[in-house]
Amino acid sequence: MEAAPPASSRPSLGLPGDPRFFARKGPFSIAAIAEAADCTLQPPRNGRELSDLRGVGPLQSATPADVSFLDNRRYAHLLDETRAGAIITSPAFADRIPEHSAALITKAPYLAWARAAALFHPVLPPAPGIHPSALVDPTARVAATAAIGPFCVVGADAQIGEGTALGAHAVIGEGVSIGERCRIGAHVSLSHALVGDRVTLYAGARIGQDGFGFAVGPAGFETVPQLGRVVIHDDVEIGANATIDRGSMQDTVIGAGTRIDNLVQIGHNARLGRCCIVVSQAGISGSTELEDYVTIAAQAGLIGHIRIGAKARIGAQCGVMSDVEAGADVIGSPAMPFREFFRNVATLRRLSRKPDKES
Amino acid sequence: MEAAPPASSRPSLGLPGDPRFFARKGPFSIAAIAEAADCTLQPPRNGRELSDLRGVGPLQSATPADVSFLDNRRYAHLLDETRAGAIITSPAFADRIPEHSAALITKAPYLAWARAAALFHPVLPPAPGIHPSALVDPTARVAATAAIGPFCVVGADAQIGEGTALGAHAVIGEGVSIGERCRIGAHVSLSHALVGDRVTLYAGARIGQDGFGFAVGPAGFETVPQLGRVVIHDDVEIGANATIDRGSMQDTVIGAGTRIDNLVQIGHNARLGRCCIVVSQAGISGSTELEDYVTIAAQAGLIGHIRIGAKARIGAQCGVMSDVEAGADVIGSPAMPFREFFRNVATLRRLSRKPDKES
Amino acid sequence: MEAAPPASSRPSLGLPGDPRFFARKGPFSIAAIAEAADCTLQPPRNGRELSDLRGVGPLQSATPADVSFLDNRRYAHLLDETRAGAIITSPAFADRIPEHSAALITKAPYLAWARAAALFHPVLPPAPGIHPSALVDPTARVAATAAIGPFCVVGADAQIGEGTALGAHAVIGEGVSIGERCRIGAHVSLSHALVGDRVTLYAGARIGQDGFGFAVGPAGFETVPQLGRVVIHDDVEIGANATIDRGSMQDTVIGAGTRIDNLVQIGHNARLGRCCIVVSQAGISGSTELEDYVTIAAQAGLIGHIRIGAKARIGAQCGVMSDVEAGADVIGSPAMPFREFFRNVATLRRLSRKPDKES
Repeated sequence: MEAAPPASSRPSLGLPGDPRFFARKGPFSIAAIAEAADCTLQPPRNGRELSDLRGVGPLQSATPADVSFLDNRRYAHLLDETRAGAIITSPAFADRIPEHSAALITKAPYLAWARAAALFHPVLPPAPGIHPSALVDPTARVAATAAIGPFCVVGADAQIGEGTALGAHAVIGEGVSIGERCRIGAHVSLSHALVGDRVTLYAGARIGQDGFGFAVGPAGFETVPQLGRVVIHDDVEIGANATIDRGSMQDTVIGAGTRIDNLVQIGHNARLGRCCIVVSQAGISGSTELEDYVTIAAQAGLIGHIRIGAKARIGAQCGVMSDVEAGADVIGSPAMPFREFFRNVATLRRLSRKPDKES
Repeated sequence: MEAAPPASSRPSLGLPGDPRFFARKGPFSIAAIAEAADCTLQPPRNGRELSDLRGVGPLQSATPADVSFLDNRRYAHLLDETRAGAIITSPAFADRIPEHSAALITKAPYLAWARAAALFHPVLPPAPGIHPSALVDPTARVAATAAIGPFCVVGADAQIGEGTALGAHAVIGEGVSIGERCRIGAHVSLSHALVGDRVTLYAGARIGQDGFGFAVGPAGFETVPQLGRVVIHDDVEIGANATIDRGSMQDTVIGAGTRIDNLVQIGHNARLGRCCIVVSQAGISGSTELEDYVTIAAQAGLIGHIRIGAKARIGAQCGVMSDVEAGADVIGSPAMPFREFFRNVATLRRLSRKPDKES
Repeated sequence: MEAAPPASSRPSLGLPGDPRFFARKGPFSIAAIAEAADCTLQPPRNGRELSDLRGVGPLQSATPADVSFLDNRRYAHLLDETRAGAIITSPAFADRIPEHSAALITKAPYLAWARAAALFHPVLPPAPGIHPSALVDPTARVAATAAIGPFCVVGADAQIGEGTALGAHAVIGEGVSIGERCRIGAHVSLSHALVGDRVTLYAGARIGQDGFGFAVGPAGFETVPQLGRVVIHDDVEIGANATIDRGSMQDTVIGAGTRIDNLVQIGHNARLGRCCIVVSQAGISGSTELEDYVTIAAQAGLIGHIRIGAKARIGAQCGVMSDVEAGADVIGSPAMPFREFFRNVATLRRLSRKPDKES
């Protein structure tokens, strides 16, 4: 048997959607794409007739058979040389679309892009069934259309809903309930938890283990029993190797639609509202509450027992030591309003230069 | 088969100790609880006779059959409306306990709470035995009362002590020794390590892999052999997805009673003393030493080759670039005494405002 | 069966290379070691004849039969009492080598040490073969000398090269290609990826999952299809529990020879050049590019869509919000040149003290 050639010797395909890894549908007419993506169609200004489109690609490598996308002003110069057959963009860039490309205009180009890309590369439903190597307790209730991967372990009285897929090696503890159409990644461990519908847990996520609770006893630390659960509402996503501890006296709660990135830590009894965003490597300490639509940027840290108001935005690496008002934008460690932070930076730079000027 | 209902449609039980996830004992008399928790009993001031108690709960939701708890002044207002049958608290709050509740008074209320909660919800010993799906090398020595979970892999010459439980999918490398009554979580990988008694490793912890050591060679980096071990003393806990690299020339050592939270990184040759606390997402670089009772708060980072004196406290997000004296409290990046840090914050705020006032 | 004795009661061996965990070769003559490590031999000044050497050890515990090593001035005082038979060091320390020790002099002592240590403790090639418990898809191509560990899952059309070893429980997704002589740790999950030769992935690394991409839709967030791959070039190492998301429209690329430490996060579409170093718990956001030989110290964070020039060095905990020039040394959050950062620290300290002096 011949060895696999090293990746470094492979020609780059240059386009997304490598068929080794992604399903592909189409081609689709530009009208069908405009409808799926909820865009207004502006045909090529040079009168070119559009053939059906075959895929998606970035401006640099898209061919005349591809749909591309522009949302960020930083990349607008790529319009000058793109060969893309159609370009999803906002009204602001409509005039700059090359004359050989159709424009698909929308006020929400990123959303439109998501839908167009999903049209060409749909996520296929998992093949139902329990892999023969999986260990499913006889008292567990697994829906007929659920897919249980190889070497999974499903504990007593656990419930797995319709259309839900467990990746290889997932471990689902006793009594855990998972709703419908969830995707549980490889190597996930999930215990002491109730999970809603359409929830995605990425590989290696750790959900439901004991919180970090101990008291000082005469001979060292003594563990405080962690008697709560993790409650994950519908449409939540939790990133790879993220950790969410179960509550001690109350539940740890993740509100519907919230998105949590890789390597995030969420402590016991924390409560996140609806549609929050928590970016990679951020940490939320025990008993802290986020109202709805809060954004926590990467590597930010929140002390315990505080409350973050709705739609507040916590900047990257921010260290939050007290409550944050709804709608506030804070950054720095300790956290302060964005304007104050950057004014401080400027002040300190000015003061540090002074001595040189005066000498 | 019917699908599992989504978590979001379940009524919240409101009380900890969901029987799907936790064992339950009792009821217990107030006297038995007072004894287990080492508290002084102060009966209800309204003369009410106490029935046996059935569980534990937070002040908000505890019933007259539950024991509750108050330690943090922040939550003292909850005393006004609680229905709890008995409340564990410190002498400072004894007067504020409602007249219908018994008070369980102690100078160590959190410890007392831990013990009361463990009385009602004991951790059951694992059922001994080797799961038929586990792969245990014939040369490994597994104690008769140890529990080896499904799909575990135990390497040659490994030792597993009495009462120790390995969760599903744990991988124990060749020659590793684990003491008695340890709990090794699901998906843990443990190699090149000697582990004491009553040690808990949470799911996904990575113990014993190569440290980050390489030298610049003519054709790129060359790996430096990592020839030490990880030595974990008795009563240590290590959090989910935490990583502890083995030593290069000396051992990486975790002292007895030390508690390490989720997603913590500990580099090769680091040495932690007894009863240290390392909170989530903190990082300790190679060859750094912590004396006993050091606390490292969340997301703090310690450079390599430094020494942190006994009982020093390193604040959240602190960046420690040099030795810290015993008993010191430091914060900031670079680390400085707490007082200096907050004085700096105030100074900078004042200076940044000045120009506006002067104009 | 008797219980395993606790680690805490074991005598420390004091020397690296515990035979329970490491292979051992030798003894070797000093000349053979000098040749393997590319050093100039300086015999003991006291005329002692050297026997063959049996192992390696730190200066504190090395015996006359061991090779030791000194590179860091901080540890030079250990030369005064060492019993080591031979010491690898740089010309700067040659005079301070004790008269009973041979000196092995080189301008690259750490590299020489790596090679000497590898001589005594070589990494043995894995025993070829597919463990009977592993699940390898019939369409996967596994080289004859590859080693597939217990409970591994290898998906359809995956390729595993000659001499490559998969640790227990590794999960290799459909279509993934892995080159020759790679080492894939226990519990790794790897999907949507092309991997070169001699790549090491440590336990629990998560490679190829969806990036953190979603758009705001009328009913909450909608996932943006992540249609790129992860391309890992030759000689890369990726640490335990690190996470590397696949690209959305382009590939996430890790350049040849790059070393990534534990718990690092790399976002979708990021591109790292050759021989970069990314230390533990650092995070690189989506679409950011590192040119060659960039160093990112521990816990640093890079915002998305920026470019870091060749040989730039990003300090620990640095928060990088904009491009960094080639060769620059930056630290702080926001990032600034090292000199400016420490000047700021000094300025602020001085200004915070002033009021006390003036009063």
